[in-house]
Amino acid sequence: MRVLGVDPGLTRCGLGVVDGPVGKPVHVHHEVVGSATSVELPVRLQCVYDATVAAIARFAPDLLAIERVLFSKNKRTAIATGHAAGVVMLAAAQHGLAVIELTPTDVKLSVTGDGAADKDGVNRMVSAQLALTASPRPADAADALAVALAALARVRIARASAPTASSWEDLLDSGKVRVAGGTATADALRKGAR
Amino acid sequence: MRVLGVDPGLTRCGLGVVDGPVGKPVHVHHEVVGSATSVELPVRLQCVYDATVAAIARFAPDLLAIERVLFSKNKRTAIATGHAAGVVMLAAAQHGLAVIELTPTDVKLSVTGDGAADKDGVNRMVSAQLALTASPRPADAADALAVALAALARVRIARASAPTASSWEDLLDSGKVRVAGGTATADALRKGAR
Repeated sequence: MRVLGVDPGLTRCGLGVVDGPVGKPVHVHHEVVGSATSVELPVRLQCVYDATVAAIARFAPDLLAIERVLFSKNKRTAIATGHAAGVVMLAAAQHGLAVIELTPTDVKLSVTGDGAADKDGVNRMVSAQLALTASPRPADAADALAVALAALARVRIARASAPTASSWEDLLDSGKVRVAGGTATADALRKGAR
Repeated sequence: MRVLGVDPGLTRCGLGVVDGPVGKPVHVHHEVVGSATSVELPVRLQCVYDATVAAIARFAPDLLAIERVLFSKNKRTAIATGHAAGVVMLAAAQHGLAVIELTPTDVKLSVTGDGAADKDGVNRMVSAQLALTASPRPADAADALAVALAALARVRIARASAPTASSWEDLLDSGKVRVAGGTATADALRKGAR
């Protein structure tokens, strides 16, 4: 299965695509999109939305994973980052994609084994797990890849606890994957699809 | 000109349409949309987005005014409300609509003369200004109408300071209307339109 990981933001929004969850995860793509602070807020949101829609169309992920916006992380920008995360999740719903929200601590813990790892630590472990010869640039792309890797780890755990689920849809139906806002069934997610 | 006022939220999102700004403001429409907390977050955002797009299509407003999400107002729900506000502003950008963000204090001060007015006070003044025989129901609709009325008051002030502007587009070009994220020109807003 393929995961689109998103580190939401207006100035820099990281998008990373990784295949898994069985065997070694495979790096597919990463990019950082954004806009200048001088651009009007609604137009900046449109940039983030358009990039998300384009990535969904180009890479056809099975799951979108997004870092949860926490007010404690950056008080000055939390609401604006929340706006950006909103349009990313909207794009997922419009395409019937399941969404997993992961806290920054979840992501760091999953990828590095340390919930308080710094940016460099995350970057190094992302490069190692994906066998990249150079660190992803810009650095925000590494965060998006880390979100995707952490989501794949979640799916691996869910598969282990639902061994009869033979497909991603089965796994969603099993209720073993906790998606944004609750334990969704595939039906509820398909309801969101156009 | 016509303003679509929005009081953003996931459980209850108020939408109110008012005509102005010359003479007595005219009530056109109000509604409250939302979804249960048991629904997945991305699908809830889609409900808010779809309702905003439908209101834009049905009422063809010239301006969308939205209450700014402040963390201090409700710490528990601020990020979720921020997600909802994000998809509302996205809908505006996709339709080339200018967006004015107003703080809760701006709205109360403009509509009641008191920046700390309570919900009942706002409701009463909205009903009086729009000559409604009954208070708007649900109550959240009154907040959306208040946002629209406050935006019309802003436009009235801008017109007074740019007397040569003969149209809404002229007024935007004059830079006398402060829109979300800066003093936008009509060009920048049209750039956002599809």
